[in-house]
Amino acid sequence: MPLVRISLCRGKPLPYLDSLADGIHQAMVEAFDVPPDDRFQTIHQLATDKLRYDPHYLGGPRSADFVLVEITAGRPRSTATKAAFYRCLAARLQASPGLRPADLMVVITTTERDEWSFGHGLATLLQPANS
Amino acid sequence: MPLVRISLCRGKPLPYLDSLADGIHQAMVEAFDVPPDDRFQTIHQLATDKLRYDPHYLGGPRSADFVLVEITAGRPRSTATKAAFYRCLAARLQASPGLRPADLMVVITTTERDEWSFGHGLATLLQPANS
Amino acid sequence: MPLVRISLCRGKPLPYLDSLADGIHQAMVEAFDVPPDDRFQTIHQLATDKLRYDPHYLGGPRSADFVLVEITAGRPRSTATKAAFYRCLAARLQASPGLRPADLMVVITTTERDEWSFGHGLATLLQPANS
Repeated sequence: MPLVRISLCRGKPLPYLDSLADGIHQAMVEAFDVPPDDRFQTIHQLATDKLRYDPHYLGGPRSADFVLVEITAGRPRSTATKAAFYRCLAARLQASPGLRPADLMVVITTTERDEWSFGHGLATLLQPANS
Repeated sequence: MPLVRISLCRGKPLPYLDSLADGIHQAMVEAFDVPPDDRFQTIHQLATDKLRYDPHYLGGPRSADFVLVEITAGRPRSTATKAAFYRCLAARLQASPGLRPADLMVVITTTERDEWSFGHGLATLLQPANS
Repeated sequence: MPLVRISLCRGKPLPYLDSLADGIHQAMVEAFDVPPDDRFQTIHQLATDKLRYDPHYLGGPRSADFVLVEITAGRPRSTATKAAFYRCLAARLQASPGLRPADLMVVITTTERDEWSFGHGLATLLQPANS
């Protein structure tokens, strides 16, 4: 049920974006306890002067390839799960599309189960079939 | 006080967007305990390859008309209120602009009252007049 | 560690955006307990009909210069800190780029420390050096 917002600078071709979005989803399935068909992503390519980030704060060095992944999650995960997910995500994106782990930033926001409707006017995650 | 982010694929004319944004606001007034003049919305039209969603996960079938409504709320609502809001919203948008309920997804994030400033450098919701 | 999303209507030149983004960051350093090199911002310029806001609700009058600042914070701040930050931010942006305090809206969302990875696949804020 997570919602994923991917922000990066303009200039990457569609195959790069495909690989990035696919890799993020695969890492979520592998390490963030997300079902394979639970995929909802938006991709935002910003002009260089619209995405501003310090090159070195608590990591880096960050380059023009910097990617910001914002995840809205529908239930809490343990610290161990989150830590394993960060590792898995960095490794997957380094393999494809070749993102340097220094250029990957992730921020998770956690909500409640009754804060999601997947359609049909239902509080989907409160239905018995999904509890 | 909610802030509403509306995301959908490009290609809808302005009257459709007007009807969509108006209907979302009206449902919030009717069922989410929001004053009529408490309206703050952003609309984001994305290229098809920038808005990725599974057509069937926990609902659907989702079409190219898929609309994602992200709400940042300034205080908690009960589960019953949220469930009634989802029903109301789906019904209103089905009536106008004719959005299929299967194509509507809603995600709510809840914040604290001191996390909002509506202007003038004030923590607005802590002022006696708004408490 | 905050992440800052800045939304406003199209039409402002780059020096205005620079001043706005710089002023927001300086206010966070001065009054929100943020290190000087902890800067991560996205800027979103929207067509007038894509940024909808009531001109008077709990403040205003809001003009076409309206600016919405959404902050995702990595740890809680006290109400006093938030209130001082709103004041500082309004004063700084009024000085430069000349934003009227009535046109400034701020919304903060608070997350947990283990919900941030600043790179290298690490849960950065859990590392001893950053605790």
